[in-house]
Amino acid sequence: MNAMARLRRMLPITQWLPEYGRDTLANDLVAALIVTVLLIPQSLAYAMLAGLPAQIGLYASIMPLLVYAIFGTSRTLSVGPVAVISLMTATIAGQVAGQGGADYQSAVLVLASMSGIILVLMGIVRLGLLANFLSHPVISGFVTASALIIVLSQLKHLLGIETSGHTLLTLAEGLFSHWQATHWPTLLLGLGTLVFLLVARRWLKPGLIMLGLAPRAADLLAKAAPILAVAVTIGLTWGLKLDQQGVSVVGTIPASLPPLTMPSLDIGLWRELFVGALLISMVGFVESVSVGQTLAAKRRQRIDPDQELIGLGGSNLAAAMTGGMPVTGGFSRSVVNFDAGAETPAAGAFTAMGIALASLTLTPLIAYLPLATLAATIIVAVVSLIDLRAIAQTWAYSRSDFAAMMATILVTLVYGVESGILAGVGLSLVIHLYRTSRPHVALIGRVPDSEHFRNVDRHRVETDDQLTILRVDESLYFANSRYLEDIVLGLVASQPELRHLVLACQAVNLIDTSALDSLEAINTRLEGAGVQLHLSEVKGPVMDRLRKTDFLDHLSGDVFLSTFDAWRALHGARASALSSPDPSKHDPGTARHFSDSS
Amino acid sequence: MNAMARLRRMLPITQWLPEYGRDTLANDLVAALIVTVLLIPQSLAYAMLAGLPAQIGLYASIMPLLVYAIFGTSRTLSVGPVAVISLMTATIAGQVAGQGGADYQSAVLVLASMSGIILVLMGIVRLGLLANFLSHPVISGFVTASALIIVLSQLKHLLGIETSGHTLLTLAEGLFSHWQATHWPTLLLGLGTLVFLLVARRWLKPGLIMLGLAPRAADLLAKAAPILAVAVTIGLTWGLKLDQQGVSVVGTIPASLPPLTMPSLDIGLWRELFVGALLISMVGFVESVSVGQTLAAKRRQRIDPDQELIGLGGSNLAAAMTGGMPVTGGFSRSVVNFDAGAETPAAGAFTAMGIALASLTLTPLIAYLPLATLAATIIVAVVSLIDLRAIAQTWAYSRSDFAAMMATILVTLVYGVESGILAGVGLSLVIHLYRTSRPHVALIGRVPDSEHFRNVDRHRVETDDQLTILRVDESLYFANSRYLEDIVLGLVASQPELRHLVLACQAVNLIDTSALDSLEAINTRLEGAGVQLHLSEVKGPVMDRLRKTDFLDHLSGDVFLSTFDAWRALHGARASALSSPDPSKHDPGTARHFSDSS
Repeated sequence: MNAMARLRRMLPITQWLPEYGRDTLANDLVAALIVTVLLIPQSLAYAMLAGLPAQIGLYASIMPLLVYAIFGTSRTLSVGPVAVISLMTATIAGQVAGQGGADYQSAVLVLASMSGIILVLMGIVRLGLLANFLSHPVISGFVTASALIIVLSQLKHLLGIETSGHTLLTLAEGLFSHWQATHWPTLLLGLGTLVFLLVARRWLKPGLIMLGLAPRAADLLAKAAPILAVAVTIGLTWGLKLDQQGVSVVGTIPASLPPLTMPSLDIGLWRELFVGALLISMVGFVESVSVGQTLAAKRRQRIDPDQELIGLGGSNLAAAMTGGMPVTGGFSRSVVNFDAGAETPAAGAFTAMGIALASLTLTPLIAYLPLATLAATIIVAVVSLIDLRAIAQTWAYSRSDFAAMMATILVTLVYGVESGILAGVGLSLVIHLYRTSRPHVALIGRVPDSEHFRNVDRHRVETDDQLTILRVDESLYFANSRYLEDIVLGLVASQPELRHLVLACQAVNLIDTSALDSLEAINTRLEGAGVQLHLSEVKGPVMDRLRKTDFLDHLSGDVFLSTFDAWRALHGARASALSSPDPSKHDPGTARHFSDSS
Repeated sequence: MNAMARLRRMLPITQWLPEYGRDTLANDLVAALIVTVLLIPQSLAYAMLAGLPAQIGLYASIMPLLVYAIFGTSRTLSVGPVAVISLMTATIAGQVAGQGGADYQSAVLVLASMSGIILVLMGIVRLGLLANFLSHPVISGFVTASALIIVLSQLKHLLGIETSGHTLLTLAEGLFSHWQATHWPTLLLGLGTLVFLLVARRWLKPGLIMLGLAPRAADLLAKAAPILAVAVTIGLTWGLKLDQQGVSVVGTIPASLPPLTMPSLDIGLWRELFVGALLISMVGFVESVSVGQTLAAKRRQRIDPDQELIGLGGSNLAAAMTGGMPVTGGFSRSVVNFDAGAETPAAGAFTAMGIALASLTLTPLIAYLPLATLAATIIVAVVSLIDLRAIAQTWAYSRSDFAAMMATILVTLVYGVESGILAGVGLSLVIHLYRTSRPHVALIGRVPDSEHFRNVDRHRVETDDQLTILRVDESLYFANSRYLEDIVLGLVASQPELRHLVLACQAVNLIDTSALDSLEAINTRLEGAGVQLHLSEVKGPVMDRLRKTDFLDHLSGDVFLSTFDAWRALHGARASALSSPDPSKHDPGTARHFSDSS
């Protein structure tokens, strides 16, 4: 494509900015205002979840949004700190430094930088597909397990006690050994907020509608409940001096714009954090893309996954350079942005300005914000992630996918997010390979008076004891090639009458080198047994490859366009006299590799 | 199956021993004699290659053969030390102990025991398929690289110098820094043997035939050349007292039957050697099974891979308990056994007796056997394993398989056998997954006046701009499910006229949970766009699974038995009025897992 087109692709902003009009501006401004209100408590809360000072959350919600507005392809995606990524950040950074220290913050910056670099590179080489190796059961299990850990990790703020840990056991142990130290005012405040938020989520919207509000307005107001909780609890803390009575609060934070930061260049640190950064990038990308695609589809828009990698990567690099934390496109915030009528990424840019304003002006108030309030908002946000329905559905649909899902959940709970997701991915790969290593094969016969062929076990069809048609329902590759040899040779051994074997290949999408060797071996052995091997319905790409080899010259039988053609040609026909197997013809297959080895 | 049948399956000897007759006995005895003659030098040589005292090779060629005769399913397979396995043994045992020491020998016994146990267990749980994860290109590359290393490792014996190492670099470095110390008498003897063996291999058989021998006799005599070389060089060494002039010889070895040995039970050692033992088992099994299948096919016999695991496992356990080394079924020895007319595993048992006799009586002579002679026999045996043709063919057929092959070769040469084979297996898995992650999809149209549908790019076919038929040439699973979403949504976005989309599923052998989520998402999004989603040619097993879910209830269109039925029903038809997309209907897919997460 020409330079202009490439530019338009790499800078999606060039696609919408030119025709940016006043109405669009109005809509984007409204959406930005609403999202800002939602985002302030969320940013503070997820910074705390990540084990960072609250203002880091605000910083991470400014530059990254501006950068995404330039490079992102989704019109309505809202980028920033999100729950699961914040938990992963806390766990992974926690492995190299103790929370609260400067080392910890620099580890977080390195994580953001590395994720940014990984995402941008993958976008440039168009490797967005790699994210697909995270199967849905694995992601779903991972998110559920993470949500459980997040809830547990926030209980300490509700109880006003000191514990730490990122796994089920460490967290439970911590809570169990410190619960006596519960600080009752904090617990009261926290539970109050929790109950209020749960009630608001459940009944505020219908309530407001009954009071005569327009459904959309009611919906948006209901979504603003968290900011209300924040305001009220700040007021209480300030009025009743709760902070002086032991209620932990955010405390004084600098009223400033994000600082310029330079991530550490300690190679050792980068190597230590690489796997973690890779996982953060993948999970963040999968979340962001699926949210983006869902929203885009609703307005018949499309997003470009590879360009999304660059947009998200840019956002994370921006976060790393402005004292932030790893970010990605979040679900509920994006939905709010969408419902509030955002039309272009400009809404995101305006939101960034709103947050910037807040971090300049609201910090004196935020100082009085109880951590218990933030904990409550986090808990309410993540409980809905615990998706037991998905677990049940997966169990019903596929035992092996269920196994991968449970492995992810258990390992995540017991050993943490990193091991959990790796275990899930590894297991789903092995399961997939095992599944394809015993391909489903079917003997097929002709549906009477038709050109169709169906499984002889499932349909009433014509067959012929000199002609066997075997349909292999899998691509042929190293993991199943020898299994095919076993099947075919067994078939021949069991049918003395057999003269023609047709492999119906409509389901064979690939024949790799191992499978080609096996086909050569099968052909040679069948020839020896006086049976001709034929192929039918070979796919174009597969045929193109076979033509590059001498297999088709060795093939004792023919290649038919359709199975029906094969049937017409071979049904009831005697085998053409076969030259007795040529002894000089070597039997291919693995044996060859070892010939004369011993 | 009943007890008797199970016994016959688990003890294949019960299948042939009862009808064992005099003629069979005669044939087996002749074969045994010939194989014994071939086996004596080979056993000594491979023991040396494995860094063990020569007699270990003899010990490993006695009990293992007897055990295989009882449990093995191949009538003609000859079990014992083989080149590649001996090299693997040397490399892996060398990682935990210095050659020559007692620790080294006990490490070798542990390797034999562990491989035996692994093989037997895999046989019991019928996991022979696991060996398929060694793709042909990987095995072929591995064998070629191993052969190169073996040749290099034997040069020191030809030169009569001291070096060590199991990788290209260490070996080359050793030879380069010690070649000045070359012992000329040794080199002369070694080169002489080498030339003789090469000449014999090339011209002895035709020569003997010209002298009027029957081809088969000539062939067998030619194969006996190594024992002749052994006899002659022993004579020379003894007559010229070469051993006293610095020609390294096997030296005095005890004239005895194999000792009873108990492998060390040091858990640490077993853990250290586990991966190595696993690889030895797999490579040995693959070699043995492919040889066995090749020979069995020639006589219309079959072998049972799972029972073979038990036979080989038993042989290795026997080797471990009688002071031996890891063994497997070798190619050329088995071919000799086959050509010599062996009819039953009894031939193997007789061979074992022959070797036992040799280790009781011939040791005084073997003491004078020069190591250079053994090195020459090894080199001649393995050069033919260097299969450049396979490399060229793989390059021509598949670049990605070629990549896996080269990775195996290079890593094996540079880092050794263990890393080499692991790298090859890992890479071939990743390649396979990447290959299936961008499935081939084809828009298909109707072959005029037929019930067939073909790729619109490859054939002249009827199409319909309101009806698009998409054939997906791959099973749908997590690695390619999102790619399908991209393809379909892109298609719909590019065809405003479109009313019906049919997914032709004849090549879809599996729809896993991730793909099911994606289909749900596609269905919902198409419905929103006023396009009906239909399926055709869904396979029985796939349909059975789908019926377990509510997907078919959500599906906006129908499921057709054949694509032609779909064409008949939808061609030229307007879309049935669609209810406008129900907003309450949530869009499935990954997004769901993150809903409200942020």
